[in-house]
Amino acid sequence: MRIGILTSGGDCPGINATIRGVCKTAINYYGMEVIGIHSGFQGLLTKEVELITDKSLSGLLNLGGTILGTSREKPFKKGGVVAENVNKPALIEQNIKEMGLDCIVCIGGNGTQKTAAKFAAMGLNIVSVPKTIDNDIWGTDFSFGFDSAVSIATDAIDRLHSTASAHKRVMVIEVMGHKAGWIALYSGMAGGGDVILVPEIPYNIKNIGEVILNRLKKGKPYSIVVVAEGIQTNGGKRAAEYIAQEIEYETGIETRETVLGYIQRGGSPTPFDRNLSTRMGGHATELIANRQFGRMVALRGDEISSVPLEEVAGKLKLVTEDHDLVIQGRRMGIGFG
Amino acid sequence: MRIGILTSGGDCPGINATIRGVCKTAINYYGMEVIGIHSGFQGLLTKEVELITDKSLSGLLNLGGTILGTSREKPFKKGGVVAENVNKPALIEQNIKEMGLDCIVCIGGNGTQKTAAKFAAMGLNIVSVPKTIDNDIWGTDFSFGFDSAVSIATDAIDRLHSTASAHKRVMVIEVMGHKAGWIALYSGMAGGGDVILVPEIPYNIKNIGEVILNRLKKGKPYSIVVVAEGIQTNGGKRAAEYIAQEIEYETGIETRETVLGYIQRGGSPTPFDRNLSTRMGGHATELIANRQFGRMVALRGDEISSVPLEEVAGKLKLVTEDHDLVIQGRRMGIGFG
Amino acid sequence: MRIGILTSGGDCPGINATIRGVCKTAINYYGMEVIGIHSGFQGLLTKEVELITDKSLSGLLNLGGTILGTSREKPFKKGGVVAENVNKPALIEQNIKEMGLDCIVCIGGNGTQKTAAKFAAMGLNIVSVPKTIDNDIWGTDFSFGFDSAVSIATDAIDRLHSTASAHKRVMVIEVMGHKAGWIALYSGMAGGGDVILVPEIPYNIKNIGEVILNRLKKGKPYSIVVVAEGIQTNGGKRAAEYIAQEIEYETGIETRETVLGYIQRGGSPTPFDRNLSTRMGGHATELIANRQFGRMVALRGDEISSVPLEEVAGKLKLVTEDHDLVIQGRRMGIGFG
Amino acid sequence: MRIGILTSGGDCPGINATIRGVCKTAINYYGMEVIGIHSGFQGLLTKEVELITDKSLSGLLNLGGTILGTSREKPFKKGGVVAENVNKPALIEQNIKEMGLDCIVCIGGNGTQKTAAKFAAMGLNIVSVPKTIDNDIWGTDFSFGFDSAVSIATDAIDRLHSTASAHKRVMVIEVMGHKAGWIALYSGMAGGGDVILVPEIPYNIKNIGEVILNRLKKGKPYSIVVVAEGIQTNGGKRAAEYIAQEIEYETGIETRETVLGYIQRGGSPTPFDRNLSTRMGGHATELIANRQFGRMVALRGDEISSVPLEEVAGKLKLVTEDHDLVIQGRRMGIGFG
Repeated sequence: MRIGILTSGGDCPGINATIRGVCKTAINYYGMEVIGIHSGFQGLLTKEVELITDKSLSGLLNLGGTILGTSREKPFKKGGVVAENVNKPALIEQNIKEMGLDCIVCIGGNGTQKTAAKFAAMGLNIVSVPKTIDNDIWGTDFSFGFDSAVSIATDAIDRLHSTASAHKRVMVIEVMGHKAGWIALYSGMAGGGDVILVPEIPYNIKNIGEVILNRLKKGKPYSIVVVAEGIQTNGGKRAAEYIAQEIEYETGIETRETVLGYIQRGGSPTPFDRNLSTRMGGHATELIANRQFGRMVALRGDEISSVPLEEVAGKLKLVTEDHDLVIQGRRMGIGFG
Repeated sequence: MRIGILTSGGDCPGINATIRGVCKTAINYYGMEVIGIHSGFQGLLTKEVELITDKSLSGLLNLGGTILGTSREKPFKKGGVVAENVNKPALIEQNIKEMGLDCIVCIGGNGTQKTAAKFAAMGLNIVSVPKTIDNDIWGTDFSFGFDSAVSIATDAIDRLHSTASAHKRVMVIEVMGHKAGWIALYSGMAGGGDVILVPEIPYNIKNIGEVILNRLKKGKPYSIVVVAEGIQTNGGKRAAEYIAQEIEYETGIETRETVLGYIQRGGSPTPFDRNLSTRMGGHATELIANRQFGRMVALRGDEISSVPLEEVAGKLKLVTEDHDLVIQGRRMGIGFG
Repeated sequence: MRIGILTSGGDCPGINATIRGVCKTAINYYGMEVIGIHSGFQGLLTKEVELITDKSLSGLLNLGGTILGTSREKPFKKGGVVAENVNKPALIEQNIKEMGLDCIVCIGGNGTQKTAAKFAAMGLNIVSVPKTIDNDIWGTDFSFGFDSAVSIATDAIDRLHSTASAHKRVMVIEVMGHKAGWIALYSGMAGGGDVILVPEIPYNIKNIGEVILNRLKKGKPYSIVVVAEGIQTNGGKRAAEYIAQEIEYETGIETRETVLGYIQRGGSPTPFDRNLSTRMGGHATELIANRQFGRMVALRGDEISSVPLEEVAGKLKLVTEDHDLVIQGRRMGIGFG
Repeated sequence: MRIGILTSGGDCPGINATIRGVCKTAINYYGMEVIGIHSGFQGLLTKEVELITDKSLSGLLNLGGTILGTSREKPFKKGGVVAENVNKPALIEQNIKEMGLDCIVCIGGNGTQKTAAKFAAMGLNIVSVPKTIDNDIWGTDFSFGFDSAVSIATDAIDRLHSTASAHKRVMVIEVMGHKAGWIALYSGMAGGGDVILVPEIPYNIKNIGEVILNRLKKGKPYSIVVVAEGIQTNGGKRAAEYIAQEIEYETGIETRETVLGYIQRGGSPTPFDRNLSTRMGGHATELIANRQFGRMVALRGDEISSVPLEEVAGKLKLVTEDHDLVIQGRRMGIGFG
């Protein structure tokens, strides 16, 4: 068999480890040939590809980024890297045929899963791997990249504690998460946040102020507030800035904000993510060998399995009020809204 | 309610976070009184205890070790901290009554679970939390401390790569794990080990030599070998020393060994372990509030639940040939025996 | 002797280690009594103080922040924590007498050194220690906190590389440094920045664009730009935002920015900073024992010595074109302006 | 000009960064041609070399190990990689001529400096860079690799604190340093060691026991003992093992040992070491461009300069009783012997 592999969407720790998992299994165990497609779906349009050999895979396990490059190219939207009048899905189908690829492995986030599902529905052989620091892909307990992002964010929150305490301030830190608050929830809990705001749980600034003032009464004149970038704010302000202003107004305590930004997306994955990437990559290849196409690899408990792409596409996995960490956080006095 | 809490057995990242999880939930949410028992079961014999307040819990989330201290005291063996003729279980039962404790939370490893099960069988109110870097407690997918130990070991393996490669050597690293090879398996896979030896899978030194010589033929004149301390060796030698000598003899390649030692047990827990500790601690308190005694908190998939202590006691969770990571590792050419 | 100690200005890794160095030497070796003054110079006005004992110093070596608290209180400006008509320097002088303090150790940045010099000129016994992540205090080769800040910033830059490369982007990262570009210079060089902008060296956006386009021509379609927050920009924009827009305009390459923020100031100091703090703290106490007042502790080469406060006050140590790292950077093709 | 570059002796964080510093400066700024010599001096005998281009240098700044490989080959000892009767220095001289190399850059430790000095005395054009985690090369304040080794060792000591405290134990940790105790001194001070033993300062086990028992009396029933591998022991035992047994015998407190081993030598350098490597590498090239041969690059204060190789060869830089950190440590109650 000859398979193609591409990586699409934003950077995420563990993409290279996943590529390694897919390709080492394909080449060494199943004797497949692997073609690396450059810059996500764009490479399927332009046929920018390379042959992956064992040598290409050396040193990938703990290397951030993706050796294949990535892009935000959307094959089911007109234009982009090709002319407006080009039928992109048809061109991709033809290119796949011309390159003799029996299956495409798509490593990507929610957008990629949607695209992959459409290609699968067109009859193309597709297998996908969920990749996102946001952990919001439906159908898998965890996506690779999430543990790394949480680890970076937690390390940052750890550092803010000392400054908050030295200056008797409130420190507001904004972490990634447009629609899903998983990074805020996990890093907020791991970093000892006093207030954690996620897009899924509406908040009331008065309640938040009370949590902070209660701490003051107990002799703790500082607090850490962890907010997801996607929480609702007034008038298009950044989450951190808005919340910091409101808290200062409510409590009268000096409040400072910081936005963690891109460092959550890059660099070497944690051991947890390296193993998840390796296992998911290997499983993707096994699915292909078994001709189980149209599926996304998934983690369920401690088992790697898979789900049909059509079930995944268009859904989001969101934080809910009855998530164990939220319940536990509330019981410990953390303010969630 | 008034509950006691103790920590028993070896050091492990996340004990303090678990204490915090138990106590914050007990004090803030359920309004319980919590008594900290010093030095494991020894404190139940000597009544060395202290009242835990909200203040005692400050700064515990990311602090290594245990503020309660620990010991290897075994209440069902004679002697130890008391005279040989003392009936220790009876003394403990009496002390618990005298101190007015409605339940004891035991945080510990396999030995602790066995002891806890015996006390539960005697009719004492016991709830336990699984604590071990070895991850060998039956009934839970993961124990807190394991992710941290794997993280430390992986970081060490990462460092050995550069030296192995610069000197064209084989580097053998011994990680913890007497009976269970989980740390070796997870850190070996995450660290890019070429050979991984665990107590559960018999090995043949000739096969291992072949894996290493095959790498040499492919232009990789260096290899990383990760061994658990509990693998079988000849004549009582340390695992690392024995394997290094045998590999050098088999392959003729210069081979050096290193034993990672105690640093796997200490220091700040990873964010994964902090959250696992917090959730498990909180769930232990919930079990008490619901009067579900005689149970060990457990992680199943991404859910926190619990299992009867009598089911856990005396069992070990071991690496098996059909574990996904072993299968995946073999497919990628890693030598397991 | 009975001495007072205070920490003033912004948070900085190593303050607690310095307090420990001062106090352990004072208490254990010289048999002095040490009074900890709360919240910087504010505590000298309000007499919020505590007796420091050996126990207070436990665990301080690697702890971020300051156990004494800090503030931006300026004793030579009217108002603040006391009424407008209060003569603050006189009140402080009186309070020092009332508390029987033979000398005050001031740990702080440039502002603190200026204040300390004024008190010294008034005839008060003062010894100071330079504390700043910015490394801009005149008279010492390095201040504690700088190596830690550089370490955090370098780690962040390392992570941005993978994202820049995966997306073929320019990533602009803004690090601290209002007037002095030391953090940008050291972390930019250690993190492999392609362009490094500091307040001391004027830049030309066309030249910067050229450096980036030259990399593109050499097959490197991504670049890392490290900027100090204090570089000149147009119309009050943040450094990172302004530079990112200009680069995108000049080069046509997608450019993203990130502001590292407060995490540069907090958390555990590096081993380098812990030792520097310990040595500087100890030397401060030695100066007092020798009654060498009116001096700031300094690092010169690998020796700890001291300089008169009057020489330090009002000066800044800035990056110059002939600094070895700038010269070396230019020779390696890094754009500095 | 056409220059050769080789790396000799043990692995050390920062070698690749130094290679990068030398070569980028040589190629980009001075327009030199650079030949990489494989496996240290062995490559000068076998002529295993490669042309270094800008591409070879990509990603080297934070990569552990050496892309040129290393060996312990000693050109002034008979045999090794060539026949016993070969005049190795003469062969090397001839090979250098044949390859048209105007100068050789030797990156290595004390042994390498001695060899380099001999070649310089023969009239060969040599420039060297000091490389050692042990920091024992005479003539330079610091060698690259030392800060990284201290950082790894300090991190390990940090972790041991929690275990020592939880179990009320003495933990003995052995770090590298055969003749020089710099790693033990710096990591011991940065890690909060209670006893620090270095080869240069004779110790008395009774005094050490007293330090530990004094801590016990003050309510600190645990201690951390940091020993260099090269301290004198009885009967050929490892330093850590011997000291642990003696302490347990003297104090009656349970004592455990751990040997840190090879992880001190490998992996990514700290930012401090990256900048030191870059500066030293660049300065080596500058020396060549100025035809200042026969010199070793050195750090003096915060300045990069150089010293004649003949002054360096055969000397060692050792810890002395009057080193500021030793004096400061003693004042703080740390046991040094």
